[in-house]
Amino acid sequence: MSEEANKTGAIAGNFKTCSEKQLEELAARIRAALLDAVKNNGGHLSANLGAVELILALYRVFDFPRDKLIFDVGHQSYTHKLLTGRDLASLREKGGPSGFPDPEESEYDAFIAGHSGTSVAAGIGFCAARDLRGENYKVVSFIGDASLGNGEALEAFFSSETKPRNFLVVLNDNGMSISKNQSALYRSISKLTAKRRYRNFNSFLGKTFKETSAFGRRLRRLKYTVKGWLNKNDFFERCGFKYIGPVNGHDLHELVGVLANIRSMNEPVLLHAVTVKGKGFEAAEEDPARFHGVGRNFCGAEHTFSAALGALLCDRAEKDPTLVAVTAAMTDGVGLAPFAEKFPSRCFDAGICEEYAVTMAAGMAKGGLSPVVCLYSTFLQRAFDQIVHDVCLQNLPVLFCVDRAGLVGADGKTHQGLLDLPALRAVPNLRIFAPKDAEELADVFDYARSLRVPAVIRYPNGGASPLGSYSRIGADSLWEVLRAGGGPVVLACGARAAARALRAADLSGTDAQVVNCRCVRPLDERFLDAAAGRILVTFEEGYVAGGFGSAVAEYYAARSRCVRLTLIGAPGVPVAHASAQQQAESLGLTAEALAERLRTLAKA
Amino acid sequence: MSEEANKTGAIAGNFKTCSEKQLEELAARIRAALLDAVKNNGGHLSANLGAVELILALYRVFDFPRDKLIFDVGHQSYTHKLLTGRDLASLREKGGPSGFPDPEESEYDAFIAGHSGTSVAAGIGFCAARDLRGENYKVVSFIGDASLGNGEALEAFFSSETKPRNFLVVLNDNGMSISKNQSALYRSISKLTAKRRYRNFNSFLGKTFKETSAFGRRLRRLKYTVKGWLNKNDFFERCGFKYIGPVNGHDLHELVGVLANIRSMNEPVLLHAVTVKGKGFEAAEEDPARFHGVGRNFCGAEHTFSAALGALLCDRAEKDPTLVAVTAAMTDGVGLAPFAEKFPSRCFDAGICEEYAVTMAAGMAKGGLSPVVCLYSTFLQRAFDQIVHDVCLQNLPVLFCVDRAGLVGADGKTHQGLLDLPALRAVPNLRIFAPKDAEELADVFDYARSLRVPAVIRYPNGGASPLGSYSRIGADSLWEVLRAGGGPVVLACGARAAARALRAADLSGTDAQVVNCRCVRPLDERFLDAAAGRILVTFEEGYVAGGFGSAVAEYYAARSRCVRLTLIGAPGVPVAHASAQQQAESLGLTAEALAERLRTLAKA
Repeated sequence: MSEEANKTGAIAGNFKTCSEKQLEELAARIRAALLDAVKNNGGHLSANLGAVELILALYRVFDFPRDKLIFDVGHQSYTHKLLTGRDLASLREKGGPSGFPDPEESEYDAFIAGHSGTSVAAGIGFCAARDLRGENYKVVSFIGDASLGNGEALEAFFSSETKPRNFLVVLNDNGMSISKNQSALYRSISKLTAKRRYRNFNSFLGKTFKETSAFGRRLRRLKYTVKGWLNKNDFFERCGFKYIGPVNGHDLHELVGVLANIRSMNEPVLLHAVTVKGKGFEAAEEDPARFHGVGRNFCGAEHTFSAALGALLCDRAEKDPTLVAVTAAMTDGVGLAPFAEKFPSRCFDAGICEEYAVTMAAGMAKGGLSPVVCLYSTFLQRAFDQIVHDVCLQNLPVLFCVDRAGLVGADGKTHQGLLDLPALRAVPNLRIFAPKDAEELADVFDYARSLRVPAVIRYPNGGASPLGSYSRIGADSLWEVLRAGGGPVVLACGARAAARALRAADLSGTDAQVVNCRCVRPLDERFLDAAAGRILVTFEEGYVAGGFGSAVAEYYAARSRCVRLTLIGAPGVPVAHASAQQQAESLGLTAEALAERLRTLAKA
Repeated sequence: MSEEANKTGAIAGNFKTCSEKQLEELAARIRAALLDAVKNNGGHLSANLGAVELILALYRVFDFPRDKLIFDVGHQSYTHKLLTGRDLASLREKGGPSGFPDPEESEYDAFIAGHSGTSVAAGIGFCAARDLRGENYKVVSFIGDASLGNGEALEAFFSSETKPRNFLVVLNDNGMSISKNQSALYRSISKLTAKRRYRNFNSFLGKTFKETSAFGRRLRRLKYTVKGWLNKNDFFERCGFKYIGPVNGHDLHELVGVLANIRSMNEPVLLHAVTVKGKGFEAAEEDPARFHGVGRNFCGAEHTFSAALGALLCDRAEKDPTLVAVTAAMTDGVGLAPFAEKFPSRCFDAGICEEYAVTMAAGMAKGGLSPVVCLYSTFLQRAFDQIVHDVCLQNLPVLFCVDRAGLVGADGKTHQGLLDLPALRAVPNLRIFAPKDAEELADVFDYARSLRVPAVIRYPNGGASPLGSYSRIGADSLWEVLRAGGGPVVLACGARAAARALRAADLSGTDAQVVNCRCVRPLDERFLDAAAGRILVTFEEGYVAGGFGSAVAEYYAARSRCVRLTLIGAPGVPVAHASAQQQAESLGLTAEALAERLRTLAKA
């Protein structure tokens, strides 16, 4: 398939002028290139296969980057990357194209994406800027149906009953989201696609008139006006958009025609395109969820902690009927699938609605349940206020299992889990844990739940080597010594940090002591008091500002104690896609780098 | 009016059994008591006057606290507080009732409130807990029309097309929000209230049958079914609610009847009640915004920084046509009113939609504008992810003016501005400033904008005494010495901290030096290097975990430097309502407390 991929670049150059037949051929080549790229480098497959014709038609008709194309989530942007000269052979690799739009990568990437529900708000902002500056370009926001139920997207849709002119929202409706789409909104929209009156009218028009003539084009416009009128109670019209659709999102001829008409209009338009997720790759069409985000050779990545959490929840739920699980469209990703199957009535997937998920969990806790909220670190940022206001101010026993905390590797800067500790560490009443391995997760989980207060357990993605059993966590054993030694004391926070610290201690030859600081809040104060006279090094995979090391520094400073303390963590910069190991190298967070620091400190 | 207020308690006791006439009298007394309480202690007036009959009717019909009453925002809950034995004479004062629901205050306060859009999500959570536990009570969420456009509320409404049974959402529709309600959603709803078919039908029924009979009650139910049918395209039906309304939210007879019927039903119901904000107090009915939140004697509080910001924006906008202002239903509160009047096309009020506001501002910045986003510290928490993902990862020149940062006084724990520094300090690319007084705001504002990067300027509510002019901020003068001295060095962050530090230096007799640390990120490294050998004290009005002092501790620790440093800030606990001065006293953040610490440190 690599040969196919190579041909893409050559043809992509004249997608504006080539024949319709060549455009169809280009779509097929793009699809082959996407399969190739994801097979080799991992990434999002189903969403990209479903959006090929839509994006190609947009590029055929609109004048990017003068016009602005704004993706939502951005995991469906690979076709856009191919058409604008990005080489997907190094997709998601260090120095290669990101798996998401990034303005630093190309002027065609009008706006960053990675999280959900932002594209309409950003589009409205662009339009406001354009109109105030007296400029004249088109703004296109490209959003999937799953993102439509997100609170920020809804805020933007409902923000006013008029929308900016020269603003197009393309709704890529594949009837899917990462997990099953149960939203009331989506159900309403899906009914539109089945409306028979329109279909009949559409078919009558199609049979009666050729649409290539000027009259035909005017007629097509009329057709959609009638369609809009038939659906005049639809919410998009209430939100100030002229509704056009549904159109077949894989019919390039139809798409190019409709988009050309839309481009000639000034009104705000919502184009509703129906697509098939995984289109053109049978395995993905049949099981799009399996091919949502995959590793090399379409394999699922190994997520030790997620798998351990799933098994743990199933086990503990047998014994505790009050245990329920809550997530936000991450059921598979956080390892909840077995729990969802075994306890369907106790597993709540809120869709891409982190805010709603967290406040709902708070309500559940007030009502006598023990909710476990499972989110990725990066998406937990969306529910920061709800964690503070609804859970922690009420001191409710909600347990947050925070997956993908730390460096995330190939997903890159929008998905990094480096901010959870700084953001959460000051939140009243909240306890924070970071077990050293998947085995210790169970111990920390039980301990955290026994406290009956708000708590966070954070752990990284990917595999995690078991570090062995030492001591169970408890009020008198918040931390544990993994390696005794008379040299510098490494206070390691989190699974990867603990594993690297052990290796660094061996490498450094400094007789370093390694401590598993599995409880970040509160700190193990007895340990800190006892160790105050030694050379102390904190080590973590997170932003150093406000992180674990910062807590240790505060502890001594609050007591006006002068200690020999060094903080090692990530500096406050965005961290682009690469392997997690490469990211650790670039930030100086490897075992080797730590060993070097230990040697220097031991000498001083 | 105090006499009236006293009578409220006596009558409130039998609101379940008293006659309808007595209930009307009670409503009048409650209204008088509300006026009295807000006149004496400040608080939210218009919203509370508008909700008297609705809340009274709910208490007449439902069985709280067995049934659960969940407020949204909660600023309209004073009637509920009166009916459940709270003495509003000490409203919002230390030890008295909070201005918002708080489960720590009463078992009748089923869930905390203070921020917007949480009540439906919390209600769904309660229902899930009840049903899983096999319990049997009613859940009532009480939400105003302005909150309905908030993303979290919309997520909850659209979460699924079925809603829990025995769940009532009361929509208190007064056609107002803090600022003007322009939401598409709201416009749709308001059209319902004008539907003539229903009105005619309603009036026909009312004339034809007495509604006190059993038959009449059944008929009333039929009436609302028909009403629902007439509005079957309405979005509440799509969201799984049986829609009932609109009803007159001030007609106790109608309300009690409708609610009694709803209570006997099992379906999820949305009751749409139309109310008048400020009802019963002419001045507030005519200008409800003026009486939204007021100080003692209905006076506006003095907000020096907010006023300074408004004047500053007007001035700078004259010279810079790219300057635009964005807020989220806080136009008056953040001081934007004069700007909105002078530059209406450049002032964007997003409604209670902080997420949308921030991403829209990011879009504006990408489109070539210079947005200034004005939010309270506590509500900025709602847009944490958007600040990270949309503004800072793209390194966009968006300036956040963060008002009410620090202790907020009478609004209490849900409104404290103690988390912005910890949450924001690690965010990539973000600069953070805290001017010492309103005069310095202009200097810092110009400097921050000149950098063309994301920046935050934080400042407290209330008045701020000018501390005098010393030096202008610049790359070589990030901090300034306000008071020279050979004793301990007080690194003061923020206006109140700087003023108190100056007083403490005088009080302590320690010849302390006082530094205005007006730039929190980056720190003034030259200053810190030069002062490393001295006794250092950081002083701030914010959580000490991850705050300004923490940054100073990190700076030295990152360089493995051993310093004599003491951090003074708020411990990680919720801070309840009281005056801001009382709150500072309880946290040990007064000038006197600092002076004491300085004396101790100087002696050691």
